[in-house]
Amino acid sequence: MPYEFRTKRQIEFSDTDMAGIAHFSRFFVFMESAEHEFLRSLGTSVATEWEGNKIGWPRLSASCEYLNPVKFEDTLDIHLTVSRKGRKSMTYEFVFTKDDLEIARGQMRTVYCTCNPGEKMKAIPIPDYIANQIEEVGANDR
Amino acid sequence: MPYEFRTKRQIEFSDTDMAGIAHFSRFFVFMESAEHEFLRSLGTSVATEWEGNKIGWPRLSASCEYLNPVKFEDTLDIHLTVSRKGRKSMTYEFVFTKDDLEIARGQMRTVYCTCNPGEKMKAIPIPDYIANQIEEVGANDR
Amino acid sequence: MPYEFRTKRQIEFSDTDMAGIAHFSRFFVFMESAEHEFLRSLGTSVATEWEGNKIGWPRLSASCEYLNPVKFEDTLDIHLTVSRKGRKSMTYEFVFTKDDLEIARGQMRTVYCTCNPGEKMKAIPIPDYIANQIEEVGANDR
Amino acid sequence: MPYEFRTKRQIEFSDTDMAGIAHFSRFFVFMESAEHEFLRSLGTSVATEWEGNKIGWPRLSASCEYLNPVKFEDTLDIHLTVSRKGRKSMTYEFVFTKDDLEIARGQMRTVYCTCNPGEKMKAIPIPDYIANQIEEVGANDR
Repeated sequence: MPYEFRTKRQIEFSDTDMAGIAHFSRFFVFMESAEHEFLRSLGTSVATEWEGNKIGWPRLSASCEYLNPVKFEDTLDIHLTVSRKGRKSMTYEFVFTKDDLEIARGQMRTVYCTCNPGEKMKAIPIPDYIANQIEEVGANDR
Repeated sequence: MPYEFRTKRQIEFSDTDMAGIAHFSRFFVFMESAEHEFLRSLGTSVATEWEGNKIGWPRLSASCEYLNPVKFEDTLDIHLTVSRKGRKSMTYEFVFTKDDLEIARGQMRTVYCTCNPGEKMKAIPIPDYIANQIEEVGANDR
Repeated sequence: MPYEFRTKRQIEFSDTDMAGIAHFSRFFVFMESAEHEFLRSLGTSVATEWEGNKIGWPRLSASCEYLNPVKFEDTLDIHLTVSRKGRKSMTYEFVFTKDDLEIARGQMRTVYCTCNPGEKMKAIPIPDYIANQIEEVGANDR
Repeated sequence: MPYEFRTKRQIEFSDTDMAGIAHFSRFFVFMESAEHEFLRSLGTSVATEWEGNKIGWPRLSASCEYLNPVKFEDTLDIHLTVSRKGRKSMTYEFVFTKDDLEIARGQMRTVYCTCNPGEKMKAIPIPDYIANQIEEVGANDR
């Protein structure tokens, strides 16, 4: 069962700032898009319906450490791992590298929620059709 | 009746790109935010309800000419004028200046629409409570 | 000689706005990135050096007409054509489609400039190694 | 001596996403802009010169916890505090509230660097003219 996912992303001109490097806030967009690709690879999406409810995965927290800058047209290798699969939430770790140089390390915690228009978002258990497809990294070693 | 609106905006670090200047796409965000301030100054908003419908003002077109670059911490003077008030649509012109130097000129055409979730957007006449507050520039001179 | 270029782009969550569709300002980023892919396909870049100068292609103008909205996870087909190749400038036209439905039409005019740090940007002739690789659309028919 | 700074920011349309709330990545831009306002309030900037070098404050890390969503046209109260003043680095904490409801809590660590074009960024001690103006929160209580 998947506990990791790999993708790539090339730095665009609009990702850069006047320091000539990718703006730090863009790494959060890169993490989110890698997460969404991961969900699509499982046959689901970050924006779906489930038992008559609109579903989303709002973020509980996000963080990033910046180790080395990247520039326009650099290609990032993005390695997502599932560090924790909760009943209602998921924690992802991200490692960004460029040619084996570590660029950044991030973490993002998301929660499975009903997001019906006009209602408050409400956390609910991740349905089995998703949860059964995802494993925590290292779960096999326990 | 108002046919113009003036506001200011300071260039933020995240507005800049590796050329050291405000990224050209940001001027479209600046136009949109000036339009929204204008609508708020009339006691309405770009996102409201009207006769039981969710209302929006989607863009039909947008354009910008770039005359001089601006840098981080520069302050733009933004001058919005209503160049055309249609039955369902509005055309705005924008002039961006910095200390009387012309930086950019833009135009944006928007249309008054019902935007109910799950339905196709549909253009409807601008209600009187808004339309009666807005005048085309030069309308008095005709 | 190339006078057109085709690429694709999937709408990301961060491209969307509260209307549930791709934000209009994002199409300018999509145009720019398609232009940069085109330049890379010719073996050059939007950010290079030439005869000891730092080179860029700042935008003179940009415009977009919005015909149909697109949503999260939709994939845009982007068709760039070179509508005018000047001595110092280039004009690109863009057609965005989704499954043959026209989504948007854009135009962008750029100019070949020296962009040395601390100097004013200055337009210079496009060097032959680039200009000789690019043709205006329809140039063969004249 | 200042160890805190307060500012406000209204959520713009382009800050929102299809979930109808401010996109999580935008809070990092809000933190950065509050930091820059703070630096300007001290008579300096995030982008300056010092002893012949171009100076920047690149980010070492950034994090945010999301407690409650905010919507278009909501106004955030942003409270920055200096939680640590190092010899070369600064750590800022941010609390975002809306009408006393806590919206988010963030942290950002930055480092004082020479950022000369063509050179690697290099951390150097924060000059006295800045350092002497800033205090860690609670420093008086020690």
